[in-house]
Amino acid sequence: MTRSASGGTAKPDAGRPAGNGRPGRRPGGPDTRGEILRAARESFADKGFAATSIRAIAREAGVDAALVHHYFDSKDSLFIEAMALPIDPRQVAAGILDGPRDELGRRIVTIFLGVWESDEGQQRMKAMLRSVVTSDEVARLMREGITKMILEPVSQVLGVPDAKLRVTLIATQLIGLALVRYVVELEPVASTDVATLVDRITPAIEQYLS
Amino acid sequence: MTRSASGGTAKPDAGRPAGNGRPGRRPGGPDTRGEILRAARESFADKGFAATSIRAIAREAGVDAALVHHYFDSKDSLFIEAMALPIDPRQVAAGILDGPRDELGRRIVTIFLGVWESDEGQQRMKAMLRSVVTSDEVARLMREGITKMILEPVSQVLGVPDAKLRVTLIATQLIGLALVRYVVELEPVASTDVATLVDRITPAIEQYLS
Repeated sequence: MTRSASGGTAKPDAGRPAGNGRPGRRPGGPDTRGEILRAARESFADKGFAATSIRAIAREAGVDAALVHHYFDSKDSLFIEAMALPIDPRQVAAGILDGPRDELGRRIVTIFLGVWESDEGQQRMKAMLRSVVTSDEVARLMREGITKMILEPVSQVLGVPDAKLRVTLIATQLIGLALVRYVVELEPVASTDVATLVDRITPAIEQYLS
Repeated sequence: MTRSASGGTAKPDAGRPAGNGRPGRRPGGPDTRGEILRAARESFADKGFAATSIRAIAREAGVDAALVHHYFDSKDSLFIEAMALPIDPRQVAAGILDGPRDELGRRIVTIFLGVWESDEGQQRMKAMLRSVVTSDEVARLMREGITKMILEPVSQVLGVPDAKLRVTLIATQLIGLALVRYVVELEPVASTDVATLVDRITPAIEQYLS
């Protein structure tokens, strides 16, 4: 579920692409990819996720939009890399949705705890959670990104009128679990084995799903 | 549920008490109370809640232990004031335990949301939650204080072998709800009315209680 810092969501680097020669647009340089990411971070921070376009990021980076598409296959990918997300939320959503409906609750808890249980994943998720809690800007961006990439796809599959409320209530339980277990380290939740936690939390999640 | 910054957990100020004249012990000065609080903050931060005694705080403040008792009726009170807690956790525990057992789940959610719903309470609770998430020291202190003043009394009343795990799992749901609703402001949880939230979350809490 965790991915390496160097990508996994972006297309492989195809070397140094040629520029298009238009005035004011620099051709792809040795750190074009880094410059696009810097521009993306600034644009997302300024305007939020929804209002930021690939075109605007390209303008900010001083490159052609086609060059942005060369390095990143979508705005979602750019967001995941620009925010240095420890996981790809699209993979999380896909994992949750891949399986029988009556095991959905257990799958949600298992996948969520799986993301947090690896040492590297845990450090990066903790850092992310801390940024969300302390920075209104990061909170707003994560709210938009996670809504679009996880909460909406899962809500659509539920197919009930108040699906978004249900899915967001599930998010409250999971985020609280992560905070108490991995950040505050409150006992006995902090040292309870994962299988027991999954067994205890799944019925609460089912409550929100049914 | 919220209390004023100037106390509510401490005995009323009885004026300037006389010192006992022992060498090295200063008599109560105009800001003796403030000095005791400063010493308490340092002692709690150094040694944690459990290992800090009233005697050690008195020594740190350079006053007699009797003088600490004059201003604060217990170590719990000193902790609540030293940490500038927005609420008195003992009142929270008392409110939770005061009522029929079959409405315990609903009472827990109602009281918790009540603490967060007032404007002043919300600002102070947010500040507290942010400190817990960003400072390991505050997290450790809150862990100890909340365990002793809320989680343990509530666990004892449940009277089942794994009561502490159950109560701590309830804490994960409530803390996550506060984080998502008031800090991250994720919709639709952020704007759902309190009565609906209580109705939706109570069954999940009951799940942990039963």
